[in-house]
Amino acid sequence: MPEIHQTSPFPTVSWIGDASGGFLRLIDQTRLPTECVEIDCLDSAAVWNAIKRLSVRGAPAIGVAAAYGAVIGARARGTDDPKAIRTALKEASAYLRTSRPTAVNLFWALDRMEAAADDPGRAPGSPLLERLLAEAEAIAAEDRAMCRAIGRHGAELLVPGDGVLTHCNAGGLATSDYGTALAVIFSAHEQGKSVHVFADETRPLLQGARLTAWELQNRGVPVTLICDNMAAQVMKERKIQKVVVGADRIAANGDTANKIGTYGVALLARAHGIPFYVAAPSSTFDLSLADGSGIPIEERDPLEITHGFGRRTAPEGVAVYNPAFDVTPAELITGIITERGVVQPVDAETIRSLIGDSNATR
Amino acid sequence: MPEIHQTSPFPTVSWIGDASGGFLRLIDQTRLPTECVEIDCLDSAAVWNAIKRLSVRGAPAIGVAAAYGAVIGARARGTDDPKAIRTALKEASAYLRTSRPTAVNLFWALDRMEAAADDPGRAPGSPLLERLLAEAEAIAAEDRAMCRAIGRHGAELLVPGDGVLTHCNAGGLATSDYGTALAVIFSAHEQGKSVHVFADETRPLLQGARLTAWELQNRGVPVTLICDNMAAQVMKERKIQKVVVGADRIAANGDTANKIGTYGVALLARAHGIPFYVAAPSSTFDLSLADGSGIPIEERDPLEITHGFGRRTAPEGVAVYNPAFDVTPAELITGIITERGVVQPVDAETIRSLIGDSNATR
Repeated sequence: MPEIHQTSPFPTVSWIGDASGGFLRLIDQTRLPTECVEIDCLDSAAVWNAIKRLSVRGAPAIGVAAAYGAVIGARARGTDDPKAIRTALKEASAYLRTSRPTAVNLFWALDRMEAAADDPGRAPGSPLLERLLAEAEAIAAEDRAMCRAIGRHGAELLVPGDGVLTHCNAGGLATSDYGTALAVIFSAHEQGKSVHVFADETRPLLQGARLTAWELQNRGVPVTLICDNMAAQVMKERKIQKVVVGADRIAANGDTANKIGTYGVALLARAHGIPFYVAAPSSTFDLSLADGSGIPIEERDPLEITHGFGRRTAPEGVAVYNPAFDVTPAELITGIITERGVVQPVDAETIRSLIGDSNATR
Repeated sequence: MPEIHQTSPFPTVSWIGDASGGFLRLIDQTRLPTECVEIDCLDSAAVWNAIKRLSVRGAPAIGVAAAYGAVIGARARGTDDPKAIRTALKEASAYLRTSRPTAVNLFWALDRMEAAADDPGRAPGSPLLERLLAEAEAIAAEDRAMCRAIGRHGAELLVPGDGVLTHCNAGGLATSDYGTALAVIFSAHEQGKSVHVFADETRPLLQGARLTAWELQNRGVPVTLICDNMAAQVMKERKIQKVVVGADRIAANGDTANKIGTYGVALLARAHGIPFYVAAPSSTFDLSLADGSGIPIEERDPLEITHGFGRRTAPEGVAVYNPAFDVTPAELITGIITERGVVQPVDAETIRSLIGDSNATR
C-alpha cells in the first residue's frame, strides 16, 4: 500500500530520492478538486494501480509515471546484479503495459526504458539502476520541454478574444509540466492574449469539471464549465472560435484517439465552421498504424456511468456501454500541434515529414 | 407542505377526489429510479414547486399538472361564489405560468382552463368548479389519446431490428400515458417489432438514466444507457438507425426547443445520415412564433452541474453556463410525429396544413 500525504498542487508526477531507494510521487487525480492528495508508489503494483484507476492519467503523464515505475520495478529482484535488474525490469515493463491499452505513450516510455537497460553506451560507467533513473528523468525533462514547445506553437493559432472549447483534461495534470491542449491556452494567456475557455465536464469521470476547470482557475485563465451536451449550443451562440483537445494515440494518417466525446465535438465544430486542433507530442503518434481503425478502444466499468458520484443514478441492472475513447478521423482535424510544429494539413505525408524520422521504426 | 406516500409506479399525474375537496397526486420524478414516491399537492404553491423542481416534467405532463393545479388554485378564495372562483383561478394561472418558461403546454393548458371558466356553454348547469375539473380531466384524457395516436403514427417509421437513440425523457413520465418519443418505441414493441434503445443519460439531471432507462426496463424494451458524449461513437458503430426525441415548444416553421443536447444529437445524426424525428402533440406547436429564435431558453441553477450527484464535482467558485434547452432548426428534423400524423417535410406549410386549424389563434 502506498503512503498518502496531504500537500499543495503540482507537480503531477515526480521522483523522490535516489535510484536504489527512491520512489514515485504523484497527485491522486481522482480526489481533485475537493482534495489535493499525493500518493507515493513504492512498488510497481502501486504504479499499475495508479494508472489503472486514473490517479495519474493523460498520455504524457502516464508515460512518465510508467518510466519511473519501471525503475521501481527493476529493483524487485535486488539492486546489485545487473542481470537481476534487467529481468525484473522486463517483468515490470510487461506488467505495467497491461494497465491501460489505449495510451501509446505507456508503451513508448517502457520501450525506451528497456532499450536504456540494454545500451551501456548511454551513460558509460554508471550503474544500471542509475542509468535507468537517468532515462526516466530524461523522459520527464523532454516532456516538460515538449509542453513548452507545444504551447509556443499553439499560441500562434489563437487571437485575443478567442473562446476556446476543450474536452477532458490535457493540462498540467496530464503531463510533467503544463499540458498539451492547455499548454496552448496557458502560453497564449502568458503572452497577454485574452482567451476564455469553455470546459466540457467530460462524463463519466468529469476530468473537465474536476481537473481542467481547476487548473485554469489556479492559473487565472477565465473558464466556464458546461455539460458535454451543451457544446453545440455554445458553438451556435458564437462563443467558440477554436477547439483544442489532447490525444491518446494518433495513427499515421492523423486519425486521433482521445477521450470519448472528442469525435462528437469534432463533428459539431465542423458543422459550425470552427477550427478543431489536436495538441500532442510526437510520442503520441503510432506510425505502425495506417489509420485509426487499428486503435484498441478501452471499455471501462459500467459503474462509472451508473454510480458515478457516490450514489446510484440509473436503475438496477440496466445495460451500459462505456467506451473510454473514440477516434476522430483526420479529415475533421484542422491541425495537430506538436513540439516540432503544427501538422497542417493533417495527412500521412505531412505527418511523415514532421514526425516520421524518429518514430518510423517503433 | 404536501403529504408524501410510498407507492408503486404510475400514473405520472392524477386527480384524487372531487372538484371541491380533491387534489393532484404525482410521482416525484426527482427521486427515481431509486425510490418511487408520490406527492399530493393540496395548494397551488405545491403544484408550482413540483413543476419548478422537476418533480413533474415533460411538456404534456406539465400541462396536465398545471390544469389540475388551476382547479386547486381556483378554490383559494372559497368554493361557492363563481366570481371568487374566477378571480382565484386567474391568480393561480398567472402564478403557475411562472414555474417554467419554455414548456408551451403549460401556457396552453392554463389558457384552456381560463377559457373554460368563462364559457358556461361547455357544461351547462354544472357548478363552476366541476366544469373546471371536467376541463382538466379532458386535457388529461386527450393527452392519453394523443400518446396512443403518436405511438401509432411513429411506429410505422420503425422497422424490426432498429436501434433508436433518444435523449432526455419523453416517456410515460412526461405525459399522462406512455409518452411521445417513447410512445413510438412502446407502440413498435407492442406490435412485435424488435427495437433496441440507446438512452442518453442527459446531464445535468440525468432524466435519461433515471427515467427513460427505468421506463423502458419496466416495459421490457431492451435499453442501453450511454453518456451524452458517446452518442457520436454509437452512431459511428452503426448501432443507431433512427433518433426520436420529444419537444418542449415547436415554432411555426418547425424549429424545435427540447432538452439541452438535442440540437447536438441532431447535428450528429445528420453527419451520420440517420433520420431524426421529433414526437410531440399538436399542443406543443406555438404558431405565434415564426421560428425558433423567439423561444425563451430557461437557464437553471449552476449547482445542477457542480453538485449534480450529491457532492461537489467542480472547483469552488467556477463559472458555469447551464441552459436547460436548445433549439434544433427545422432543416435537421426528418419528421415531426404528432397525434394527427407525421409532419414531413418539416416546413411552415406542412405544419400549417396539419396543425394550423386549431392552434392558429392561440
